[in-house]
Amino acid sequence: MKYKLTIAYDGTSFGGWQVQSNALSIQFLIEQALSTVLRAPTVITGSGRTDAGVHALGQVAHFITDAPIEFSRLRYALNALLPPTIRILEISSAPDSFHARYSAISKEYHYHLHLSSILDPFKRLYSHPVYTPLNLDVMQQAAELFIGTHDFTSFVNESHTPNASKDGVRTLTRLQFVTEEGGIRLEFEGNGFLYKMVRNITGTLLDVGSGKIPLLELAEIFAAKDRKKAGSCAPALGLFLMKVSYPIF
Amino acid sequence: MKYKLTIAYDGTSFGGWQVQSNALSIQFLIEQALSTVLRAPTVITGSGRTDAGVHALGQVAHFITDAPIEFSRLRYALNALLPPTIRILEISSAPDSFHARYSAISKEYHYHLHLSSILDPFKRLYSHPVYTPLNLDVMQQAAELFIGTHDFTSFVNESHTPNASKDGVRTLTRLQFVTEEGGIRLEFEGNGFLYKMVRNITGTLLDVGSGKIPLLELAEIFAAKDRKKAGSCAPALGLFLMKVSYPIF
Repeated sequence: MKYKLTIAYDGTSFGGWQVQSNALSIQFLIEQALSTVLRAPTVITGSGRTDAGVHALGQVAHFITDAPIEFSRLRYALNALLPPTIRILEISSAPDSFHARYSAISKEYHYHLHLSSILDPFKRLYSHPVYTPLNLDVMQQAAELFIGTHDFTSFVNESHTPNASKDGVRTLTRLQFVTEEGGIRLEFEGNGFLYKMVRNITGTLLDVGSGKIPLLELAEIFAAKDRKKAGSCAPALGLFLMKVSYPIF
Repeated sequence: MKYKLTIAYDGTSFGGWQVQSNALSIQFLIEQALSTVLRAPTVITGSGRTDAGVHALGQVAHFITDAPIEFSRLRYALNALLPPTIRILEISSAPDSFHARYSAISKEYHYHLHLSSILDPFKRLYSHPVYTPLNLDVMQQAAELFIGTHDFTSFVNESHTPNASKDGVRTLTRLQFVTEEGGIRLEFEGNGFLYKMVRNITGTLLDVGSGKIPLLELAEIFAAKDRKKAGSCAPALGLFLMKVSYPIF
């Protein structure tokens, strides 16, 4: 039987989602907890990896097991074994055809920018403080240029994942600026996000906002299909994976 | 000249406000930063101490110096020296008669209760998770009994501060329940708060809400003037000192 997990985590102290040799990963800890509770080695497949320091409120993963499962009891047992920085929010059945990564039809990310001369101590791990003055109007104009179907190659880092897509074409359905206490958040929604794409777009928008990259250069940057032409990469700590959407099954 | 500081801090990793021998304190770190910038040993006097783990968004302190001061420059220098968990929000002149503790006319505290079966990883350090079902109606009725002028001795721990007041009479002008994402916060406002008073009142309200203490017993608990008669002490992490108010000068 196949099951779907919805997961929240504070990425601050992890080496990211994916199991790796040199740092504690969220995937590893969940697999360890699942294997303990189900009394059999169990692997999970996430909707995509998140980097070290990136947070999630709605990461999704699937796993397969023959063990009998009582949802609320399993959730309780997993959360009891996991550190308080990782919480299983939901467990549900999924059809055999479900795949956390390949079945996803859209994802939503939020990037939080802290725009105050004094850092809020409670946001220090969850937003990127920007102290240089930003022209938000120009940033919003720049953001418009990212919406729609484009080749985002200039905004994608080379991935070390085997079989990573070489195709940079994706559709960004929404890139919205929302004012929040102490700053703004950039809400991204699209049919797929490539490696570091949200952080590279955010970094480029910040470079446009600070005047480092002229708005008129963006078309050229897109056309170059070269990561080195675009702006900087915004730090991980401001990024939240909010939601992964699937067709109703 | 006398100056007033308004301070925010994440209390998680400190031994509390007050300088002490066995743990890093917020007061100590601010005094160290001030003494460095002003090039002379400088002490600060807070509006009151907060315990280990208690947070603040509007703590107030005063200090005296003969050094010439440029407010925004001093604030910048102090924040550069302080850890990101402590921020100086404001520096202003104060009259000679001003005293951060004795001039205060009211204080506001918030206590955050997380009322969900699953802990939000982002609230784990800033709210007290309560997993037992609570009767919020009865808790609100109980809260009404605390509003007004009362002898709060049963809700005060013995203080180790020299010259601590033996008089337990204080006026609580407001104790309000406000719904927030994932739970509720209790907003306390009053002319003075004794040692652990907010946490003891909150703990007692929780004991009433869970049925451990009958509502009708509260009058008796007040009358006993005995800390042992009241309910438990709610943990530090849910508590925020929001604001200290002074007469306009």
